[in-house]
Amino acid sequence: MDSRLSATARAHPNIALIKYWGNRDEALRLPANASISFNLSGLETITSVAFEPRLTADSLEIDGLPAQGAAAERVVRHLDHIRALSGQRARARVVSRSNFPAGTGIASSASAFAALTVAACAACGLSLPEDHLSRIARLGSGSAARSIPDGFVALETGARDEQAFAHSLAAHTHWDLVDCIALVSREPKSVGSSEGHRRAATSPLQLARVEDAPRRLEACRRAIQEKDLLTLGEVVEQDCLLMHSVMMTSRPSLLYWLPVTVHILHQVREWRSHGLAAACTIDAGPNVHCLCEAASLEQVVSGLSHIPGVGEVIVCHPAPGATRIS
Amino acid sequence: MDSRLSATARAHPNIALIKYWGNRDEALRLPANASISFNLSGLETITSVAFEPRLTADSLEIDGLPAQGAAAERVVRHLDHIRALSGQRARARVVSRSNFPAGTGIASSASAFAALTVAACAACGLSLPEDHLSRIARLGSGSAARSIPDGFVALETGARDEQAFAHSLAAHTHWDLVDCIALVSREPKSVGSSEGHRRAATSPLQLARVEDAPRRLEACRRAIQEKDLLTLGEVVEQDCLLMHSVMMTSRPSLLYWLPVTVHILHQVREWRSHGLAAACTIDAGPNVHCLCEAASLEQVVSGLSHIPGVGEVIVCHPAPGATRIS
Repeated sequence: MDSRLSATARAHPNIALIKYWGNRDEALRLPANASISFNLSGLETITSVAFEPRLTADSLEIDGLPAQGAAAERVVRHLDHIRALSGQRARARVVSRSNFPAGTGIASSASAFAALTVAACAACGLSLPEDHLSRIARLGSGSAARSIPDGFVALETGARDEQAFAHSLAAHTHWDLVDCIALVSREPKSVGSSEGHRRAATSPLQLARVEDAPRRLEACRRAIQEKDLLTLGEVVEQDCLLMHSVMMTSRPSLLYWLPVTVHILHQVREWRSHGLAAACTIDAGPNVHCLCEAASLEQVVSGLSHIPGVGEVIVCHPAPGATRIS
Repeated sequence: MDSRLSATARAHPNIALIKYWGNRDEALRLPANASISFNLSGLETITSVAFEPRLTADSLEIDGLPAQGAAAERVVRHLDHIRALSGQRARARVVSRSNFPAGTGIASSASAFAALTVAACAACGLSLPEDHLSRIARLGSGSAARSIPDGFVALETGARDEQAFAHSLAAHTHWDLVDCIALVSREPKSVGSSEGHRRAATSPLQLARVEDAPRRLEACRRAIQEKDLLTLGEVVEQDCLLMHSVMMTSRPSLLYWLPVTVHILHQVREWRSHGLAAACTIDAGPNVHCLCEAASLEQVVSGLSHIPGVGEVIVCHPAPGATRIS
């Protein structure tokens, strides 16, 4: 294998603090609104890409199994895009492995397409600035754009491809905000995010959610800058409920919550009323991400673990962006 | 007691199919949007009112106990309004009794203020048309306006008091639509509807919900007329989720659901996917109202009863409006 034609990259998934839901352009995955997230330490996808002139088709292995069907087509389309940019015409051998379950509301497609983008571009010899890598990652999965830069990240929106990239708001060392993920289900969700994004426009609430986004983005940016968990928690929890409102009122309706999801929401509100600084956010799935600072970490993890229906609590700190590791 | 100065009335609570949430005028309780409901048989409030010149203050007994505090003040204000209309100056003895628990999302204030309005007006000698009685009831509790007319009822909205009254869309004998109420809590809710209505405007979603209301009202009216449960169920379920979206995203947030509320929503969706015609709606509380027709009643009641956390299932058919009974 020619080492100049191969590369390996690591990327972390991210948790959105201000959610992205719905596209203004489906083909280009131009988000309906800007979003803010941070990368999650401990959880990662490592992807190797090698362009091999002798291959007659892309060879794709994801988590130890050959990729098939729609998932494989999506990766091939992404490789085609990078081939077109670089002039590289060979087919690729891709081996990708994540250390967390896919399709459960932890954004596995984010780390997967971020790592694939960095590895494939490097293997092609493309040396691109971060904003361009982020735009390419976005074409594979909208939230993957946010797994490219370091730490706390904003994905801007815009009417054109060149405007919709993510950039770092603060390094992962800026603030030790902890995400305690209460896993309540490891089942793949019945309706994936790509289909969900398409349904967003069918909700009578989506436009109002999008129009109010600048206010929430500004409040979130400021709270990150000032490391103000109370203000952050308020806007993050409202933002997540706005997204789930759109999901529930789409046609057909998307109800990602399980009974235990509501149990955790109430529990965290009760803790907060007793002075514990913690807030919830929920991605497109039933798991609840509980945000806190290091000082309350033990109390939050212990409290979440005791809720019937919570299978495991994963603790993540802010993490760096996607990087080539070999 | 002078019988010309006393009267007794019966009124039923109602379940809103298209919800009313938020007022355009708090003092007059002019609803932000029109709503549609039907009165619930079996559940009722019976209220006697006697104006007694010798009383120095209104004497109020509700469900066997003297009314106190804010609840008493609200009734006195309502009596004052009726006294002002009629010229009657005596204080009143009011005895009211409901056969269902208050404050659990079954609109006890609706039947209470409807029965109070009919009894007090009759006791004063006021003979008013239904639309006027409905407007008076509305001043006590918005949804009480809908418990005045017969059967399936629409409460119109408008910029002035005279425009906001309820009228019957179809008699209670028109369609045997059954409401199976899964009681999951008998606890009074922590935040009452009056406070909830005031919070509606703090949600970024309320305006969009209100602006989309004409579409839902028209679909609901037509579905009632055509006795089309499938169409009715779709719009009713979406409408209720729109209201709870506004509640959850208000500031402070109102999360009326319990874990079992979500369990029931999923369960009914699963039944529907297997061909059982049923739909859910949820008032300002955690109980779920499951709508079906007589043919599936047994199956729905049995299914709901087997869900852990469902304490009791109350079955209600469409009922007449508020009437004087003595």
